[in-house]
Amino acid sequence: MIKNLVRRNILDIKPYEPGKPIEELKRELNILDIVKMASNENPLGPSKKAIRAMRKAISTVNRYPDGSCYCLKEALSKKLNVSPENLIIGNGSNEIIELVTRTFLDKDEEVIMSEPSFLIYNIASRISDGMPVMVPLTDFKADLNKIRDSIGPRTKLILIDNPNNPTGRSVGEAEVEGFLEKLPDNIIVVFDEAYNEFVEREDFPDTKRYIGRKNIIILRTFSKAHGLSGLRIGYGIASKEAVQFMNRARQPFNVNSVAQAAAIASLRDEEHIANSRLLISEGKRFLYNNLDSMGLRYVKSDTNFILVNAGRSAKAVFEEMLKKGVIVRSMEAYKLDDYIRVTIGTMAENRRFVKTLKEVLTKNDRSSTKSV
Amino acid sequence: MIKNLVRRNILDIKPYEPGKPIEELKRELNILDIVKMASNENPLGPSKKAIRAMRKAISTVNRYPDGSCYCLKEALSKKLNVSPENLIIGNGSNEIIELVTRTFLDKDEEVIMSEPSFLIYNIASRISDGMPVMVPLTDFKADLNKIRDSIGPRTKLILIDNPNNPTGRSVGEAEVEGFLEKLPDNIIVVFDEAYNEFVEREDFPDTKRYIGRKNIIILRTFSKAHGLSGLRIGYGIASKEAVQFMNRARQPFNVNSVAQAAAIASLRDEEHIANSRLLISEGKRFLYNNLDSMGLRYVKSDTNFILVNAGRSAKAVFEEMLKKGVIVRSMEAYKLDDYIRVTIGTMAENRRFVKTLKEVLTKNDRSSTKSV
Repeated sequence: MIKNLVRRNILDIKPYEPGKPIEELKRELNILDIVKMASNENPLGPSKKAIRAMRKAISTVNRYPDGSCYCLKEALSKKLNVSPENLIIGNGSNEIIELVTRTFLDKDEEVIMSEPSFLIYNIASRISDGMPVMVPLTDFKADLNKIRDSIGPRTKLILIDNPNNPTGRSVGEAEVEGFLEKLPDNIIVVFDEAYNEFVEREDFPDTKRYIGRKNIIILRTFSKAHGLSGLRIGYGIASKEAVQFMNRARQPFNVNSVAQAAAIASLRDEEHIANSRLLISEGKRFLYNNLDSMGLRYVKSDTNFILVNAGRSAKAVFEEMLKKGVIVRSMEAYKLDDYIRVTIGTMAENRRFVKTLKEVLTKNDRSSTKSV
Repeated sequence: MIKNLVRRNILDIKPYEPGKPIEELKRELNILDIVKMASNENPLGPSKKAIRAMRKAISTVNRYPDGSCYCLKEALSKKLNVSPENLIIGNGSNEIIELVTRTFLDKDEEVIMSEPSFLIYNIASRISDGMPVMVPLTDFKADLNKIRDSIGPRTKLILIDNPNNPTGRSVGEAEVEGFLEKLPDNIIVVFDEAYNEFVEREDFPDTKRYIGRKNIIILRTFSKAHGLSGLRIGYGIASKEAVQFMNRARQPFNVNSVAQAAAIASLRDEEHIANSRLLISEGKRFLYNNLDSMGLRYVKSDTNFILVNAGRSAKAVFEEMLKKGVIVRSMEAYKLDDYIRVTIGTMAENRRFVKTLKEVLTKNDRSSTKSV
């Protein structure tokens, strides 16, 4: 029985359930016309500059990638105004979360995180033998006061998803400043800023400026606004020392060469990011208006997705929409049983979402009326 | 001081030092005509079928990859005659090593491995709080008797690099059969078969047939014969139960979509593999002949690389060759101070290697004569 050889904490872990891939739905339901609004991807696709860079990179994939990601760090360094030594590149920012827990988290040390927030935080902490401490959101955003009150003698890490996934709300500069001022020196705070490109509020914190003053690690990704989720590339910004230690826990060739080339090109394509932002901003207004007119509640979002209260079992709504070829995300895994999360798509996708949601809710209304 | 917050075992780890990337050498030395024979890559490049598949895949990298690697597992399943449930795909087979230690290795449990063998085994074991137990090679290959004698009450894993890197020698079926027969049930044996496509001996063990009877995990990669090292993709073959548990320790999107597409196409291109094998086989004979005529000792190899005794400090030889644009690998990190490891290249690259090695050794002979 190999089960007896498995580490105790692995036995307790329930794997993360990702959004349904389009190909899988095609296989299962034999539907061809499918839209995926489930994984907060960029509906415009990757930048054309990135596509050109990838086309060039694929001919030399017989060579190992540059394990130090030299050129990408140079490019990011200029963009972010930090030293290349402040940067660590990962196989998606997910991997940076793992590198943080593997480098810093000792057995039974506590990791404070919001609930709900990105599920991988909890899983990664437990794989590293840490103890997740869940702090409820207030008004759908991280409650930094409650988080501070949860700090105890065994706290090692605090993970702040800003803006928060799956709610879309963020905490502002004043809150973060006050929180960090009182942060003890033996605690590391991770700000996961995967959606930062979509934030429109002016007082979104510039967390980089706390590096060196406090133990903080910032996570960013090329998976969202940059449209490179399929390639797996994200990064961390931290003190040089923190980066050096995390590098010891890192596989030497963790980031593939096509991703490195695409990310560098993508950073240069500011127009693509601007277009993506504009699309999301317009789509957001369109969806808000339609949800309003349907009488549905939702959370105002600083990201490219919207958390919508479907007013009934989200699982049923999710499944009905799936049958009609629209993939959204049901939120029971996040303990939000009545909520779906929809990624803002192209305007055509947004219209299809609204139409399908209306059909599904109307049908459900009728069937519930019938069954009364 | 963030150092005080780092886990004890991370502080002790010296990161793996990879072979020098061509781009880095170009930057450093301003040499344009460089050949890299340092990382056991396929000098023919990726398969043309894989290039076509990559070209198609790059346009949709804005979508997350299929986290289950459904299509690749189907393709591998047919090729290997195992169930898709016996397969786990990784960000290179390096990641499968990490998944094994993370899933099965408890604090202070022992991991037996050969010395020298692939350095990542030692690093991955220590990151997971395990204790590496190093067993010397005999005649440059894994000594299964000594390994069995090293099994103790705390042994959890045995890692067998077959053929061994960096020596190139393999253990055969009879040895493996005898070893596994007496293997206790509370130990997991990992066979790393990264170079299996290059093995010419007829009695190379078909380890797959032990799955289910013994706790074994087989590692394979697309980085070597398949020429996809830049994309990071490898896999493990194990019992369904072992795969299920390792999946809990796996990031949901650990394998990028371009790699998945390329790997599937690459499996279909048997001609490319046959050509690569032929090239290596011919190159091996050419290099053996030339090393013989230079009076240098070397280890007969079952892989696409050769361990060569340079008869003097390999570090100096490595550095002299580097200056002349030929990248090989110096073996001090493997405690083989007089040895270099050379990857078999194209015939042009092999000739360049021989010519450059002759120049470097002759020059060294002269300077040592002078200094007497």
